[in-house]
Amino acid sequence: MGKMIYAGKAKQMWTTEDEDVLRVVYTNQATALNGKKKTEVEGKGRLNNLISTLIFKYLNAQGVNTHFIKTISNDEELVRKVQIIPLEMVTRNVAAGHFSTRFNVKEGTKFAAPIEESYFKSDELDDPFINNSQIFGLKIATEKEIEYMWQVSRKVDQLLTPLFASIDLQLVDYKLEFGRLKDGTVILADEFSPDNCRLWDTKSKQHMDKDVFRRSLGDLTAVYQEVLNRLEAKLGKEANK
Amino acid sequence: MGKMIYAGKAKQMWTTEDEDVLRVVYTNQATALNGKKKTEVEGKGRLNNLISTLIFKYLNAQGVNTHFIKTISNDEELVRKVQIIPLEMVTRNVAAGHFSTRFNVKEGTKFAAPIEESYFKSDELDDPFINNSQIFGLKIATEKEIEYMWQVSRKVDQLLTPLFASIDLQLVDYKLEFGRLKDGTVILADEFSPDNCRLWDTKSKQHMDKDVFRRSLGDLTAVYQEVLNRLEAKLGKEANK
Ligand SMILES: Nc1ncnc2c1ncn2[C@@H]1O[C@H](COP(=O)(O)OP(=O)(O)OP(=O)(O)O)[C@@H](O)[C@H]1O
Ligand SMILES: Nc1ncnc2c1ncn2[C@@H]1O[C@H](COP(=O)(O)OP(=O)(O)OP(=O)(O)O)[C@@H](O)[C@H]1O
Ligand SMILES: [Mg+2]
Ligand SMILES: [Mg+2]
Repeated sequence: MGKMIYAGKAKQMWTTEDEDVLRVVYTNQATALNGKKKTEVEGKGRLNNLISTLIFKYLNAQGVNTHFIKTISNDEELVRKVQIIPLEMVTRNVAAGHFSTRFNVKEGTKFAAPIEESYFKSDELDDPFINNSQIFGLKIATEKEIEYMWQVSRKVDQLLTPLFASIDLQLVDYKLEFGRLKDGTVILADEFSPDNCRLWDTKSKQHMDKDVFRRSLGDLTAVYQEVLNRLEAKLGKEANK
Repeated sequence: MGKMIYAGKAKQMWTTEDEDVLRVVYTNQATALNGKKKTEVEGKGRLNNLISTLIFKYLNAQGVNTHFIKTISNDEELVRKVQIIPLEMVTRNVAAGHFSTRFNVKEGTKFAAPIEESYFKSDELDDPFINNSQIFGLKIATEKEIEYMWQVSRKVDQLLTPLFASIDLQLVDYKLEFGRLKDGTVILADEFSPDNCRLWDTKSKQHMDKDVFRRSLGDLTAVYQEVLNRLEAKLGKEANK
């Protein structure tokens, strides 16, 4: 069974017999407002695990180096253990959420080029927005690492924007996390699910992501299930075998 | 007399007979917390005007292109009119103020390399912290302009850090504003005074800047007068003739 080394807001991380491998257990907990809004959503763990699996497999196949090893049950996967670089790397194709409030830009405004933001992962400091100069000054990551992470983030955008568009979803924005292997190699880690991105139905403009929960817009499970169905129809169900 | 075209928190901007020249009137108003803390401080306008004049003359002489033309009275100067680029360009040599709170870094911590931050000048939005990607996405300034402004900011640091050190003041951090001339040339504008920088006495560690007001540490006028005295002793009183 291993030992649980981290109980996050959405996932638990467990050790395995292999010290370089972790078992991730996706939970049904949904949180917003940095944990102030919280509830159990039946099926959410399974849906995020299956969605993230399809995306990471797709990215791996397209040459993106990720932590993903394999899915071992409906809500569990094995991943390569990394030392997480404490930065949330956010890419925005369209204005929404915090960005819209912060700069008074209408939700849905498309940017000429994607906007890139990083946030310092620190519960105590409330994940403050951070710039490169501060990242280097505080020695959070090196210039080379930051350059590499944005390079991968851009490749992810180029791969996933058309993938989602082909299943009638607009990829509005998303958050990635990266980590270092023992030898210092940086790889994509964490997850890619509707918890960490915004997806808008291209026809109905309906929110198909965690905003359904944040803004109390309806049934989160149904919406995540619809995203999974469309991805499976596109990428093949057997991808999740 | 001209027309007053802008009444700021610390200065008024007046037109002159020359449409490319503005008359700046420094007022005695001191504000903090984005205007929530406010009071009249006798002599402050004169002191900021005379301090800023000495600094801008020094920078001009060292080859930095600024808006400064000449001082015409104790609290008035003439400057070249620019279209202000709505960004506050902040350079930090040592942790203090917002930075310390935001990243939980003790005041006084020296950085290996100066940390650079920009803020979007917008009263309505409360001057949010902004990164380059957002600046370009929102078309606030071009890449070339940003590059030039940081280049000048670094030159200012290299000139003023030793200048202040020679009069026993540590240049902790400072904020610059830039603007565009009609032909698009970017020049240094606004002011350089203890209202927009932090100066610590190298021996007593006393605050010799607006933190005296922000933190209610004593007599602002006496402290600004001391900064002016030291600068005049160094740069020559006649500089302000
Ligand atoms: N391959 C990996 N190796 C080690 N840690 C990882 C790996 N992938 C993700 N993590 C980390 O494991 C945790 C996953 O838990 P979860 O997503 O629930 O965290 P969280 O509540 O979002 O909290 P936070 O992200 O602020 O730590 C995160 O801290 C994430 O950074
Ligand atoms: N050469 C210049 N030409 C035109 N405007 C200038 C020039 N130099 C400075 N300014 C602008 O004139 C105003 C000076 O007033 P003051 O410093 O009191 O403003 P403030 O209250 O700090 O408000 P804010 O800086 O937010 O506009 C500022 O808006 C500044 O950007
Ligand atoms: Mg997480
Ligand atoms: Mg000002």
